[in-house]
This record gives sequence, C-alpha cells and structure tokens, in this order.
Amino acid sequence: MTSGQRPAPAQRNEIVTRRDELGLTNWDIALLIATVAIAVLIPIEVVFGPLKLGWLMVVSAVASVLFAGDVWIRRTRPITVRGVRVVNRAQITRRYLRTWFTVDVLAAIPFDLIAVIPGIDGSAAADVLRVLALTRVLRVARMLVVQREWRIHTSINPAVLRLSFFAFWIAIVSHWIACGWIALDGAESGHPELAPYQQALYWTITTLTTVGYGDIVPIGRSQVGYAMVIMALGAAMYGYIIGNVASLLANLDVVRARHLGRLEAVNNFMRDRRVPRDLQAKVRDYYNYLWESRMSEQSEMLEELPAPLRIEIALHINRAILQKVPLFERANESFLRELVLHFTPTVSVPGETIVRRGEIGHRIYFINRGSVEVLGSDDREVVATLTDGDFFGEMALLSAAPRNNTVRALDYCDLYSLERDRFDRVLSEFPDFAAQVREVAERRRAENEPGG
Amino acid sequence: MTSGQRPAPAQRNEIVTRRDELGLTNWDIALLIATVAIAVLIPIEVVFGPLKLGWLMVVSAVASVLFAGDVWIRRTRPITVRGVRVVNRAQITRRYLRTWFTVDVLAAIPFDLIAVIPGIDGSAAADVLRVLALTRVLRVARMLVVQREWRIHTSINPAVLRLSFFAFWIAIVSHWIACGWIALDGAESGHPELAPYQQALYWTITTLTTVGYGDIVPIGRSQVGYAMVIMALGAAMYGYIIGNVASLLANLDVVRARHLGRLEAVNNFMRDRRVPRDLQAKVRDYYNYLWESRMSEQSEMLEELPAPLRIEIALHINRAILQKVPLFERANESFLRELVLHFTPTVSVPGETIVRRGEIGHRIYFINRGSVEVLGSDDREVVATLTDGDFFGEMALLSAAPRNNTVRALDYCDLYSLERDRFDRVLSEFPDFAAQVREVAERRRAENEPGG
Amino acid sequence: MTSGQRPAPAQRNEIVTRRDELGLTNWDIALLIATVAIAVLIPIEVVFGPLKLGWLMVVSAVASVLFAGDVWIRRTRPITVRGVRVVNRAQITRRYLRTWFTVDVLAAIPFDLIAVIPGIDGSAAADVLRVLALTRVLRVARMLVVQREWRIHTSINPAVLRLSFFAFWIAIVSHWIACGWIALDGAESGHPELAPYQQALYWTITTLTTVGYGDIVPIGRSQVGYAMVIMALGAAMYGYIIGNVASLLANLDVVRARHLGRLEAVNNFMRDRRVPRDLQAKVRDYYNYLWESRMSEQSEMLEELPAPLRIEIALHINRAILQKVPLFERANESFLRELVLHFTPTVSVPGETIVRRGEIGHRIYFINRGSVEVLGSDDREVVATLTDGDFFGEMALLSAAPRNNTVRALDYCDLYSLERDRFDRVLSEFPDFAAQVREVAERRRAENEPGG
Amino acid sequence: MTSGQRPAPAQRNEIVTRRDELGLTNWDIALLIATVAIAVLIPIEVVFGPLKLGWLMVVSAVASVLFAGDVWIRRTRPITVRGVRVVNRAQITRRYLRTWFTVDVLAAIPFDLIAVIPGIDGSAAADVLRVLALTRVLRVARMLVVQREWRIHTSINPAVLRLSFFAFWIAIVSHWIACGWIALDGAESGHPELAPYQQALYWTITTLTTVGYGDIVPIGRSQVGYAMVIMALGAAMYGYIIGNVASLLANLDVVRARHLGRLEAVNNFMRDRRVPRDLQAKVRDYYNYLWESRMSEQSEMLEELPAPLRIEIALHINRAILQKVPLFERANESFLRELVLHFTPTVSVPGETIVRRGEIGHRIYFINRGSVEVLGSDDREVVATLTDGDFFGEMALLSAAPRNNTVRALDYCDLYSLERDRFDRVLSEFPDFAAQVREVAERRRAENEPGG
Repeated sequence: MTSGQRPAPAQRNEIVTRRDELGLTNWDIALLIATVAIAVLIPIEVVFGPLKLGWLMVVSAVASVLFAGDVWIRRTRPITVRGVRVVNRAQITRRYLRTWFTVDVLAAIPFDLIAVIPGIDGSAAADVLRVLALTRVLRVARMLVVQREWRIHTSINPAVLRLSFFAFWIAIVSHWIACGWIALDGAESGHPELAPYQQALYWTITTLTTVGYGDIVPIGRSQVGYAMVIMALGAAMYGYIIGNVASLLANLDVVRARHLGRLEAVNNFMRDRRVPRDLQAKVRDYYNYLWESRMSEQSEMLEELPAPLRIEIALHINRAILQKVPLFERANESFLRELVLHFTPTVSVPGETIVRRGEIGHRIYFINRGSVEVLGSDDREVVATLTDGDFFGEMALLSAAPRNNTVRALDYCDLYSLERDRFDRVLSEFPDFAAQVREVAERRRAENEPGG
Repeated sequence: MTSGQRPAPAQRNEIVTRRDELGLTNWDIALLIATVAIAVLIPIEVVFGPLKLGWLMVVSAVASVLFAGDVWIRRTRPITVRGVRVVNRAQITRRYLRTWFTVDVLAAIPFDLIAVIPGIDGSAAADVLRVLALTRVLRVARMLVVQREWRIHTSINPAVLRLSFFAFWIAIVSHWIACGWIALDGAESGHPELAPYQQALYWTITTLTTVGYGDIVPIGRSQVGYAMVIMALGAAMYGYIIGNVASLLANLDVVRARHLGRLEAVNNFMRDRRVPRDLQAKVRDYYNYLWESRMSEQSEMLEELPAPLRIEIALHINRAILQKVPLFERANESFLRELVLHFTPTVSVPGETIVRRGEIGHRIYFINRGSVEVLGSDDREVVATLTDGDFFGEMALLSAAPRNNTVRALDYCDLYSLERDRFDRVLSEFPDFAAQVREVAERRRAENEPGG
Repeated sequence: MTSGQRPAPAQRNEIVTRRDELGLTNWDIALLIATVAIAVLIPIEVVFGPLKLGWLMVVSAVASVLFAGDVWIRRTRPITVRGVRVVNRAQITRRYLRTWFTVDVLAAIPFDLIAVIPGIDGSAAADVLRVLALTRVLRVARMLVVQREWRIHTSINPAVLRLSFFAFWIAIVSHWIACGWIALDGAESGHPELAPYQQALYWTITTLTTVGYGDIVPIGRSQVGYAMVIMALGAAMYGYIIGNVASLLANLDVVRARHLGRLEAVNNFMRDRRVPRDLQAKVRDYYNYLWESRMSEQSEMLEELPAPLRIEIALHINRAILQKVPLFERANESFLRELVLHFTPTVSVPGETIVRRGEIGHRIYFINRGSVEVLGSDDREVVATLTDGDFFGEMALLSAAPRNNTVRALDYCDLYSLERDRFDRVLSEFPDFAAQVREVAERRRAENEPGG
Repeated sequence: MTSGQRPAPAQRNEIVTRRDELGLTNWDIALLIATVAIAVLIPIEVVFGPLKLGWLMVVSAVASVLFAGDVWIRRTRPITVRGVRVVNRAQITRRYLRTWFTVDVLAAIPFDLIAVIPGIDGSAAADVLRVLALTRVLRVARMLVVQREWRIHTSINPAVLRLSFFAFWIAIVSHWIACGWIALDGAESGHPELAPYQQALYWTITTLTTVGYGDIVPIGRSQVGYAMVIMALGAAMYGYIIGNVASLLANLDVVRARHLGRLEAVNNFMRDRRVPRDLQAKVRDYYNYLWESRMSEQSEMLEELPAPLRIEIALHINRAILQKVPLFERANESFLRELVLHFTPTVSVPGETIVRRGEIGHRIYFINRGSVEVLGSDDREVVATLTDGDFFGEMALLSAAPRNNTVRALDYCDLYSLERDRFDRVLSEFPDFAAQVREVAERRRAENEPGG
C-alpha cells in the first residue's frame, strides 16, 4: 500500500534509530576510547607529575579535539526522549546545555597540556592546572549512559553485558584508588622491590577484596583515614558485586531457571506418588522437550505484540509451511497474513494419536519439526511417514467429514494446527479465493485421497 | 457538592497527615539533630571522661530541653494507629506511657551534666551518672520509627532511602564500637602516631570489613573477647549489607528489571526462530517504547484505585485533551468526570493503520503523544498530519457511519480511545447534554467533514 | 450436632497434635537441654582429658538417664507421618528402629563416665571410650528435626526463628572447631596471655569471619591442613549466612515488601504523569491504609480455606457486628454462619460518597472501623455520624427502595457489605426467620426511618 | 493398539535416550575419571618436571587411549539436538568437527609421555611438549556439558547436584592456582616446615577465602601480579559462591518456601484479627496438611501434561482405588483410562461433613488416605468407619437420589470425587458397559444399601 518512491515510515524511523543508538559509528568508538584513555592518564599525571613522553601528550591532544568535535555535533544532533524523536534544534540545544554540556566542555579543555607549556610549566599555576585536569575525568560518566543504551537496544544477553560493564568499572576505580594512595605517599615499607604504582595497586586490591595480608599497612593520619574510606568502599563494592552476581545468576537464564524449578516440583510429586521410573522419565522428557523447543513461549509472546508486528513474526515462522500446501498456493499475500494469526502451536509426545480414523476432523495439522506415521485402514500398517514441513488433515478445512486415517506421532513433534471455523472466517473476507477453495473441495470429495 | 465554607473531609485529613508524619517541622528536625548529637557525644564522654568544653555542655543541655518538650507534646498529640487517627487524649497518653515514654524521659535527664556539677564531679557518683547517661543514647531508636514512616510516606525512591539509613546506622555503630575499644584500653602498639580515637576507629573498620591487616590486634582477655564479639557482629552486619544490597539491586527499579527480563526472553525467542534482524529490532523498539512511555502500567494502576481517586487521576491526565474537543466544550464537569473513566490507552507502532477508510467506526481517538497522517480518498495522498493533543474519528461517537479516511501512525503514538457504546451510556445520564450532542450530530451529518 | 458426651473429632485431634509437636512438655525441654549440654561437654573432655569435676559427671549421668528414658518412650509414642497419625505400635517401633534408634541409644551410653571408672581410667581403653563418647554428640542432630517442627507449627515469625536456629548452630560449630584446634596443639605463639581454649576460639572466629589478623597462624602439616579445611568451611558458612540473610530480608515481611514495591511503581507513574502533589499524597495514603488495615488480604485468605474453617474465621471477625443489627437479633446461629460467608470487605476513602440519596439500594453496610456522616435531605446538613460497629442501608435488605440519605466517609473506613440477593438466597433456606424478616420489612416501610 | 512384534515408538525412543545421556555406561565413567586425572596430573608435571613414576605414566597412557577411542565413537554416535534425535552420520560428523573435535584430539595426544622418550627428554623440545600438554587439560570443560545434562535428566534434587559440581570446580581451580604459585617460585618464607605444594595450596586457600593471615605473602613482581589476579578472581568466585548459595537456598525447596510464606501471611492476618488461638492452630494444621499431602499440586501438575501422559499418571495413582469398586470390576481398561481423567482431588478437614443425609448426591467419593465415619439415621450413632481405599456415595453415580447417611471426616482426608455428569459422559462412549451399570442401578434401587 505504500508507494514505491518513499520509504515506509517504520523503515525510516528504524534506520535513524539504529545509527544513533546502537550502530556505534567509528566516531562513537573513537570517543569512547579517548574517554577511557583520559580517565586513566590524567590521575597518573596528577600523582607522578607531567608525563613529558611525546605519545601521551598526543593522546591528550587528540582526545581534546575529539571531545570538542563531540560538543559541536551534540549541540544539534536529534535525540530520542521517552521513545519520541526530538528534531527541533533549539530544543535539543537547550536540553544539551542543561545536561552534559559542562562536563563535555571541561573534558575538551587540555589543562594538562597547558600546564607543560614552557613558561607555565614549573609554576604554581601548573599545579593548579593539573588538578583542574581531573575534571576531564568526569566525562567517563558518559559510559554509564552508553552502557544503559546498550542494555536496552542490543540482543546480547544482558547478564553478560552487565558483568563486562562491572569489570570495567572495578578496573577504573581500582586504578583511581591506587593513584590516590600514591598521592598520599603510600607506605613503601612492605615491598621495596616493587615500583610505587605496582605497590599501590597491590595494596588497593588486597584491601578491596578484604584479603588484607598486612604486608603493606597505612602509616600516619592521612593514610589511615584514606585506608578507612577505601575499606568501607571496598565493603560496599563487595556487597554490590555479590548482590549483582546473585541477581545475575538468578536472571542469567530466567526461562531455564523456571524450567528447572518446575521440573523439580514434578520430580518431587512423582517420587512422592511412587510413579514408576519409566513413566517418570517420560514426563521429564516431555518437559525437557517443551523447554528446548520453546513452543510454550511462542503463543504467549505473540499475544503481547500489536497486530502489525504479530503478523510479521507469525508469517516469518510459518511461511515455509504455507508455501508447501497446495490449497494455499494460489492464495494472495493478504489472505495468508490474516491466516497465520490463527495458527495454534501444539506439541505431541511420541506414540500419541493425533488424528483417529473415523473421528470428525476439525483442523489441519502442519509439522514444524518431528515425524508422524499415517496408519492404513487396519490401524496397524504404516502407509506413510510425514516429517518437517509436511501437513495432514487438509480435508478438515473443506468439510466436516470423518478422518480417513489414524495419524500417530513417532517423535516429539512441533505441530501447528488451524481450525476449520477460523479458516472459514478468514475465507469469508476473501470471496475470490473462497470460490477456488470450494472448487478444490468438490474435486477432493470425489478423489477421497489418503493423508486426510 | 461540598459547601465552600468548610474544607472537604479528605482535604482536612490530608493536611493533618502531612504536617504530622512527613512535613518534618523545624521542631522535628531539631529533635532529630539533638538525638544524633547525644548518640555521638555520650559514648565519647563515657570513655574519655567529662568533656568540659563549653559548647559540648550546651549541646547536651539544649538536647535535654528539647527532649523534655517532646515528652510534654507527645503526651497529647494525636496519632495514627493502623490508618485511623486517634484524637482521644486519654487514649493517646495511655498509649504513650506504654510505649516510648520511658525512653524519652531517660533521654531528657542530663546525667552527664549533673556529673560535672561541682561537688559531684570527681566522686564515685559521677562515674555512675556517666554510665547512666548511656541510657540517653537509647532515644536514637526513634530514628527507626522515623525512617519507617519516611519509607512509606515519601515519594523518594525507597532503595535510595534505605541505603542512606543504612549508611547512617553503620556510621553510628562503628563509632560506638570504637568507643568500646577505647574503654578496654585498645592496643596502641600498631600505630603510635595516631590519636587513640583514630586508632580505635581504624581497628573497628579493619575488623568490621573483615580486611584484618593485623597491624592492630587485641591483647589480653577482655580485648580478645571484645574482638570476637565484634568480628561475629561484623560478619552478621556484612551479611546484612550484602543481603540488603542484593535485594536493593533486585528492587531498585522493579519495573525496569521486569522490562529487561521480558526483552531478553523475546530476544532469545526471536534468535531461536531466526527472525530477520530488522524485524527483531522493530519488536525490541516496540517493547522499549511501551516501557518508556509507561502506557502499559496506566490501566493496571487505575483499576486498583477506588472510584474517587481513579476519576481524579484520569481527569488530570486527560483534561488537556478534553478541552480541545469541540464536541465536549459545553459539557459540564460531572459529565467529563464520568467520561474519563472510559478512556482506553493504546499504543500504535509506526506505519500501523489505526483507522481504515470504509470500515464502520466505533471509537474516537485522542493523540496523547506522537503523530499520525490522514490519507485522502485514494489512500495515498496525505491530507493532514495530526499530533499531540489532536483527535480523529469524532464522527464515530455520533453514528455508526463508515470512516471517511484512512489514518496511519507516523511514529509510536500514545492514543486514548473512547467507544461509542460507553459514550452513549454516560450520555444517557446527562439528558441536557445529550440533546446538544444529537444536534451537533445532525449538523455534522450534512457537512460530512474530513478527519472522521 | 455433636453430642455433648464426647469431644468433636477436630478438637480431639488438635489437642493431641499440640501436646506432641508444639507444647514442649517439661520432658521435652529437659531432653533438649541435656542434648545441648552433651554436645558442648563431650568435645571438651576429649581434648582436655576427663573432667573429674563432680557436677560435670552429674550432668553427663543425668543426660544418659534422660536419653534412655526417651528411647523407651519413643519406641511406642504415636507419630504423625505426612499429616496422618500413626498409632499402630508395631509400625511405630519399626519406624523408630529404622530411623533415630541407633543415634538415641549411642547418646544414652555414658562412655565418658565409664572411662573414669577406677581400673579403666588411665588405660588405653579409657582413651578409646572417650573418643567413642563423641558419638553421643550426634544426638544434637535431633535439634534439626525439632527446629523444622517449630517452623511449621508455631505462629512466631519464621525469619526470627531461622535466625535464632542459625546463631545456635554457628555457636556450636565454632565450639567444635576450637576444640579440634586444641586437639592439634594449636599454635600458642600469638597470645601467651590467653588460656588455650580462649586462644582456640579466638583463632576460630578470626578465621571463620575471614578477618585473619595473622596473630595466630597454623604451624606444621596437621594444623595447616586443619586451617585449610576450616577456611573452606568458613567461606561456605559465610556464603550460607549471607545467602540466608538475603533471603531472610526478602521474606522478613513479604507483604510489606510487596506493598513498598507497588507504592514505588505508583509513585514513579504519578511523577511521570506530573500528577499534582496533593493528589499523589492521597493515592499514597490510600495504598498505605489498604496495607495497614490488611483488608485486601482478607477475602483472598478466606477463599483458600475449606468451608468449615472459612465459616469459623468469618464468624469470629463479624460476630460483634452481627449482634448489633436489630434485624438479626432473633436469627439463629446456623443462619448467621451461612450469612457471614457473603460479607464483602471494602475500603472507602475519606470524602467518598458510599450511598447516594435517591439511588436504588442493593446492600447493607457494616462499619468495621472508621466513621461516616449521614447527610439530610438537602445533602449538606449532617444528621448523624456513625462509627465502628454501626451499620447503614439496612432497608436495602428488605426491598429495592431508593436510599433516603446520602452517606459519606469521613475517614478511611473498613466496611463490610452484604447484597440483598445473597441475603435472600440464605434466607430462603431458613423459612421461619424469613417470615420474621418480612414482618419487620412491613413495619419499617411504614416508619421510613433515617439512616437507610 | 500397537502390535506385539515391535516396541512402541515411545519405548524405543526412551531406551535410547536413557543409555545416551543418563545411564553413564562404564565407558562414560572411565572417560570422566580419565579426564579428571589428566586435569590434576598435567599441571603438576608442568611445575615439578616430569613425573617418572611408573603408574603416573600408565595413567596418562590409558587416558590417551580412552580419549582416542572417544573421538572415534563420537564421530558417528547419534545425538539429540533441541529434543530431536539426529542419526544422519554425515551430519553428526560435521557437527562434531565444528564443536568438540579439536579439544578431544588434543587431549588424546600424550605430549607428556612423548616428552620423556629418551632422546627428547632433557632437550628444549621436552619443555615445549610439557607446556603443550596443558592443552589436554581443556577436556575437563566437557564436565560442564555432562553436568548440564545431569541437571536436566536426573531426578536428584538439582540444588544438591549444583552444590556438588560447585565443590568439584573449586577444588580443581584451587589445585591449578596452587600449581601456578609454585611455577612462580612461590615464597617459602612463611612455613619452611611444609612441602612446596602444601604451602602453595595453603596460600591459595588463605587468599581465595579472603582470610589473608599474611604469613605467606607474594614477593617480587611476578608473584605480586599473580596474587592480584588471584585475589580479584577470589573475590569474583566468592561472590559467585555466595550468590549461588543464596539462590540455592531460595530454590532448595521452592514449594516448601512458598508454603512457609503463605503460612506466615495467614499467621499475621489471624493475629491481627485476634482469631482465637485454637482456631489459629486449626487453620495452620490445614495448611500444613495440604502441603504435606501435596494434594494441591496434583491437579495443577496433571493439567499441564498432554493427554497420553496425564492418563498414565492418573491411572497409576488411582488404579488401586478403581479395582476395589464393585461397580467398575467388569469395566474394561479403556473405560477406566477415560474415567480417571475426571477424578477431582479434594481435602476434608477433621469434623467436616462431607455428605449430608437427605441432600441430593451428585458424586462418589474415594478415600485415598484418612478415615471417615458414616452416621446412622439419627445423625449421631456411628454405623461404619471407612478408611484408605474405601469409597462412599456410590449410589450418586446411578441416580439423583437423596443421600441415605451423613458422612463425616475423622481425620484430614485425601478424597477423590467423581461427578455423575462426567461419569455419564464417559459411559455414553461405552454402550456395553453402560448397560451393565444400568442393570446394577436397578438392582441397587431395590436393596437401598447403607453407605450411599
């Protein structure tokens, strides 16, 4: 229905969204790297004095340029506020000034480079500048925003993402704490064989993990005070780690956990009732199959979605099946779109009789996965074996005749079934195709072919 | 319906509630500060002997006066017991005597000041008095009650509150433990460069956080015994911290967590079914929008509330919309109050056809947020674009005529819809306004305006 | 219906249950004390050699006698297996022999006393006996069974119980670990000023809490091996403590937690929708009231119970109300038993119009708590104020007449309402009383009294 | 319906499944032992140099042979992918090459044995080979797959399994860490009396458990670096342990936890409403009974299962009862299979009147557990006591006659009831048996026997 000349609104919207928030253009990646580099380098410069190594100065300068560019771009770049895009430039600028502008600008000023300009270097102003340079580190807070975006917009397991972010932050914070320890002339008594930074990091980790060997201990008021703060912080962080891990474990695979819980309840119940072991195993197998094939989730999930998305998903899942059914081969797209919404997923256990000869048939079955055997008129001889993508009971869509054959599951089978009532309801909206179907029905009634 | 002369009962009740339990009058704040000050000072006095510094004595004296005043006030101040206000004075007094009276009175007696009165000071009685002064500290337990009230009656995130209360209690308890360590002549071997209190606090934190450097260790029976109790306490406290953090993290944003969980299940399902990546992104976007706009919560929340509150909330949310609709401009307040209860919130995805030309219309739509395009009679040309606060399908309220135009969502849209059936039901109770509406309907039928 | 001569089956059953599993007769308490005493004393004897102190030997002897008596009693004492009482003696004995018999008998043999019999004392047999005496300690496992019973059959908060049990077990296990450390000649280097047991306990707690000062460290293979096991055990125990605390905190007050969670969601929603602050406070007040009065739980809970218990609970809650209603004063017990099942609890917010003059009344209201005002025919003047235990709308039970007065809630009110339909249905089973009610109805219709 | 000559598909499938994934043939056990042995031995060889002890070389050689055999077998062994068996050899081989093939082949090459071949031994190549031998350890990752299978396919409590797996992995990892410490010439200062491996393991455990006595501390860059990594790892592992324990405790007995939670809510409610203590005890008893007998779970569980499994479970539970009822003794198997699906489990409390004389009976009751008394025509005298496996109200299946006797529960009873409607519906499909039943009904109506 959309004219070919312009992209459909949904498409347009989606493309924009992707580039903005997920795609991480090279520009975004460069900014992230620069942010982390600054967060690591500046504290080192503050405690050890200016690093006059050429490449470090280049890093600082490049970061400044990148940050300045970022300020310029963000001034007008469209943003998404609570799910709705804002494109009004004035509004974007106002919002930016109110939020990240100050942090971004401070990060863009290369205080540390200014401090080593001949003339300033060595003066009292240089020390002030170096401390001011710490404000550049604040930009690392942007990582929190980026990480939040990622968690929502990516399809990576959120537990894995959360653990990675967590490791990142612990590493950064440990680095800062070690730098702070050096700034306080951290005791070098314990390990004279180590460089000061190594010693400080060792102390930091010994303390944060609450191992506390005691080979490096704080000496003097300021160090003891610092150590107390770090210990308290470490306890809180440790608590946070553990709490996180506990909730991560609980959420790592919610569906799996629920499955195992249900399995346990069922096991307890069956043991309690002294159900024979082989019947127990069958029941367990059934639950495991149900879980592995994710059939039980499907209908639940589809119901939550709004109609347009529901149709697209259902169509995607069942298209291969639909194309195989001769009855539907001349059906047009919009008929199939309506039809797929009425497919019901079911699971049959090995040996289950799905269709019984002589019963009045009400639905057609499509085999998504698994295999079934069609029995002859004596209900013993196997006349056909159907598997993935096959279907049976087609006649039930055309009339309420009794089934000609018994069909029995050989394996666990994922089936989709479609009831005649629903088929007729959809058909009533497509009179042209309905006529074709009636014609086929007439022809079939004469033939009375097997498999139905 | 309430006469103007006296405030409505609800209003009266609410004002009283606010001043009592949340408002924290200056008096309440003064009491809290005094309580904390006493909890900090008295243990110091007990271990270091009388603090004869003038300002500390003033603090103690002022606190005593405040506490005495509080006893006097609470004797008769109305209280709320299980949601119902008690105003009967005798009942209040009886309840007060049974509960906090003893603690409040003990806190009001300035044992520590009496101990430094010339004549008593230096005698054995002074020592007894100073130990007795510890009973003043008990009043800090009132903080628990205050904190519990806050958690219920404030709109601040309860997780943040709980963390703050928690930090407060750990600080207070650490202070007490350090004082106890000093009282037992805590080993000063490890850090002769520190003042005794610094050393004691350092030991306390080293032990409570289970870091245990071993630079200060207990010596002698009483210290070792004390250390064992503190270590056990530390382990319990640590367990409590971690348990708290874990449950805090789980509850920090319950709605968000549930959202992420659902998103993950959907992601897993779609990956498993090999849904194309762009369709996956669309589904994710839909869930994200639903969550960000909080549309899915609204109907749930409103249903739980009793009718009077439900009306007020719904009215607040939709008033702006109602005022824009010409049809309602002459409707009176009580009609609108009834009407808003029948608004149904829905979300439409970009590109979704909300209204199809030729279908029989059953409801009017109000756009809360987002934009839609109205297509002309060829279903291609865009004849109008409607946005926040606009409405369409108005004609459906007046008669069951077919829609004149197709309306399609451009963005995600928060819509409110109102069914004709429900509109008619409300209308039937307001015959005057119903006549007006019928009149408008007649006029419109002649005009047959676009947008409906 | 039960004859007076013999107690009703339910009663009989319950009395037996109580004495057995909860009542803790003096005998049970004596056994518990003896069990704990043996668990504490025997390990001390094993590591320090025989305690020839008179009273300790008396304790051991008394415990042996008690345990022997317990074996004798349990041989035939009726037990409850999966909710059903077993009284068959042979069955009980067989079950006892299969389960606790060995442990109980070993605990009853006073190995430690035999070891100090002159002649045996000092010989190699005495050492063997003392080690054998450790089997007496096994009886402490019975505590687990007792604690499990308590958790199920008591009304004490299970979280508090669990914490107490937990503290008990940690204390016992720490004692055993300390005894083990002494048995391995635990290093006495660190604190020569302490007695060996004190030192061992100090080391145990330092290690279990993972503080690890390092002032006492294991020396030599056996000690280091022991320390490794204890450290691993400590880590597991610590994990168990923290896990327990976390789940305790989560369960300490499940209802409260759910309440706070809901409150937060509501707060978030209202802030998001910019609901005015006073309306926010009203909504919060409503939720708080609902929670504090526990009205929302009641109907849920009653529905789960089987009919006989449901009636008894409902009768207990509403009896005071029923006795006040003149209409019911001549109703017999079985009528009221049927009636209470149809009471519906509701909560009204301050200012809510519960009954509107002129509307057709369908139900009577009983005020459980709170107060309402009855307005005169001008809907402004207050003609009456009703409070706890009062009722209104009585006329609605008799006929479908319009209400005479408007009734408005002054406070939050816990109301019970009863619909005419349900009243009539119950009445139809009690024809005698139905006649009386009809009579009253006739009389009332003439009077047309206020308050209905 | 299945012919006797060939096993039913379900059976076939199940047997295969069992041997593959659960049965652990001797071959599987030998492989597991070899895998663990290699994971333990190889790191020791790497740090201490070649172990020329004969039996260790034999172990390594045997493991290599086993692993090689495993590669050969797995190349074509059928596998189960997402619940469906794959038997196509090419497909299996392709899958194997893509997944475990490399790891399995590396593990099968005895690098460590090649290194001690005279000529190679002592050369630089030998050192390279020994390090290469570490790749054999990778095979231990297979344990993860095996453990995952166990958790799903066994009926052992998954919490117990998880704890065991966890202990296994901690032991293995500690061993590896200790070997790593030795490789870095771990400080031997602290405990010269210990062998290097003992010392290394002691340091590992002291560090991982965060006890950190400080008697062994890292010295020099590489050791300090290693210690920092291990401390961080220890913290993460500790967090993982605690998180696991917390979630284990939460899941150890989900049903039990839910039961205790409900019990607590009920207790709180009853205390709040001041329900008399004996009524409280009765309500508690009821909930406890319900939980212990697992009656409430049964219907829930059966509903989830597909029809064939549901019938088998229901038949197993009720067969003993069915065989006792004279009415059913001539019913054929397929009739009973249909019938059991309509049995409804209920619980009656002591003293509850299950059937009242004179009421119209609609269902038959089967006593699964517990006892009831049948009262005579005066509703007082006990004419019979029925217990496990008995039934009453049989007449209700034949006609809608009034009950002849009142039946009252003596204990808590697990009852199954069957409604006449449902019985008739099943009967209508079995006309032969229906005739027999009608005949019995006629005969009974004449007799009018007690107990119905």
